[in-house]
Amino acid sequence: MSTVAVLGLGLIGGSLARDLHEAGFEVVGYDRTREVLHAAHTSGVVSSMLGPDLEGLEHIETVVFAVPVGIAPHLMQEALPRLRSARLITDVGSTKTAICQQAARLGIGRQFVGAHPFAGDHQSGWEASRSGLFRDARVFLCPLSETTPEALQRARELWQQTGARTELIDAEAHDERLAWTSQLPQLASSALALALDTAQVSRPELGRGGMDATRLAGSSPEIWTDVVLENAEHAARALAALEQQISGLREQIEARSESGIRNALERALRWALSEKQSGSKQRT
Amino acid sequence: MSTVAVLGLGLIGGSLARDLHEAGFEVVGYDRTREVLHAAHTSGVVSSMLGPDLEGLEHIETVVFAVPVGIAPHLMQEALPRLRSARLITDVGSTKTAICQQAARLGIGRQFVGAHPFAGDHQSGWEASRSGLFRDARVFLCPLSETTPEALQRARELWQQTGARTELIDAEAHDERLAWTSQLPQLASSALALALDTAQVSRPELGRGGMDATRLAGSSPEIWTDVVLENAEHAARALAALEQQISGLREQIEARSESGIRNALERALRWALSEKQSGSKQRT
Repeated sequence: MSTVAVLGLGLIGGSLARDLHEAGFEVVGYDRTREVLHAAHTSGVVSSMLGPDLEGLEHIETVVFAVPVGIAPHLMQEALPRLRSARLITDVGSTKTAICQQAARLGIGRQFVGAHPFAGDHQSGWEASRSGLFRDARVFLCPLSETTPEALQRARELWQQTGARTELIDAEAHDERLAWTSQLPQLASSALALALDTAQVSRPELGRGGMDATRLAGSSPEIWTDVVLENAEHAARALAALEQQISGLREQIEARSESGIRNALERALRWALSEKQSGSKQRT
Repeated sequence: MSTVAVLGLGLIGGSLARDLHEAGFEVVGYDRTREVLHAAHTSGVVSSMLGPDLEGLEHIETVVFAVPVGIAPHLMQEALPRLRSARLITDVGSTKTAICQQAARLGIGRQFVGAHPFAGDHQSGWEASRSGLFRDARVFLCPLSETTPEALQRARELWQQTGARTELIDAEAHDERLAWTSQLPQLASSALALALDTAQVSRPELGRGGMDATRLAGSSPEIWTDVVLENAEHAARALAALEQQISGLREQIEARSESGIRNALERALRWALSEKQSGSKQRT
C-alpha cells in the first residue's frame, strides 16, 4: 500500500498525510477547499491531487475518508464508482456506527474498517495539521463482521506508520463510550463558556485552571455539531448525568453542607488521581 | 519591611516565601504541620521559625496569613495579641469579604489589606510551591475604608517583589466576580469528574481536551470546600447558570436540532476567541 488517498485535509487528514509522506508513502489528496488542496500539494505532502469528482481514485488500494462525520457517508457514496481497486477503505470520524452501516449498505463492507484516531485538540484545519500528532495516541478500529482479515491488517499497518496504538472495538460500544470520554468534556467546556458569557466574564479573566477547563470551547462547531447529532442519544444521556452532578453540588452549596461539598470534591479528587484504565477494550 | 512573617507554607504561602527570600527579605515562617515548617527552614527559605503559639511575631511589621480561608479568621484572632508591631497585615485567600470583616472586627483594619493572588493551579502544599509562581499574575487588593495609605502601599510593594500585577477591588465585588472566574470552573471540573466516575470512565481514557477539562478536579478538597462555603450564595448562582446552559444544550440534542446545537457551539467559540477583558477593575 505504497499509495494512499486521503480525502479531506483538515487537522486529522492533514496530519495523517504528513506522517505517511514522511514514512515514504505516496499521498494522493483531495479537499473540497481548493486552496487547502493546493497548499498541501505545494508543501510536497500531497504528491498528486484528485479532481473535483475524485478522478484518479480508481487505481488506489488504500482510501481514507477524513471529512466531518456528517459528510463522510455522502462522500463515500459519491466515491463508490471509483473504489473498485480499493483493498482498504477507512475513515477517521469520532462516531463509528453510521459510517460502518453506510459501508455495509454500499457493498464495500469487506474492504471497510472504521477508524477513530483519538488525538487532536481544539484546533482544526490544514494549518493546524502536523506530523507526529498520532504518536502514542489510541486509534479505535471498528471492522464489520464481513471485513476481511487483509483489510484489517492493512488498517493496523497504516496507523502503525504514525506511531499510534490500535485498539479493536465494536462500533456501537465505541460510540457509547466516546459520548463520555470525548463528547461530554467537549459539551461541558462549551456550556461553561456559555455560562461565563451570560455573566459577561471574558476568558482572559480566568486563571490557569479556568483556561484549561474552557480550552475545548474553542473547537470547531462544524465538526462537533455533526458528531453530537450522530451520537445524540448517548451524548444527551451523558449530559444529563453531568446536569445531575451539578444540581447535586449546587444543592449542597445552597444548604451550606460542609460535609456534602467536601465529600463531592473528595470523590472528584480520587477519580482525578486514579490511574487505572477502567475500560475493557481489546488491544490489538 | 525587610522582615516578613508568612503564616502557612502551602502552595501560595510557600511560593511567596520563596520569592521574598530570593528578593533579599528575611522570611519568618509558621505552619501548623511541623514537618513542613522544618522543611522550609532547612531549605533556607525561612530563616527563623515562629513557635507553636506564634511566639516571635511581636516585632514583625509585615504579616501574611496564608492559610485556608476557613482557618484564616481564627488564626488572625489567635495572633491578635502579637500583632502590635504590624504595619501591614494581609492574607492570600480566594474570598475576601469575611476576612476583611474579621480584620475590622478585631480592630486591625487600619493595617489590613485583603489580598488574593490569582495564581496557582490544581496543586497544593509546600512541595508544590515554587519561586516565580506569581510572575505576571493578577493580585487583587481589597483595602478597608479605614486602611491607611501606608499599609496599602506596603501591600503593593510586597507583591511587586514577586512580579505580580496588583488590582484594587472592593471585597464584595471581588467575591461576586471570582464565583464566576474561579469557583465555577473548579466546580464544573469536579462535577464532570463525578459524572465520569458514575459512568465508570477513568481519566486515562480521556483525550487531551478531556484531560484539560478535568485538571481542576485534582485540586485540594480542603481548600475549596472552605472557599465555596464562604462564597456559597455567589457560587450557587454561578452553578445554576451552568446547569441551565447544560440543560438547554441537552434539550437541543434530544430534539436533534442541528441549528440549535450549532448556534450554541458557535457562541461558545466566539466567547473562547474573544480577547478583550470585560471586567472593569482598576489597575493600581
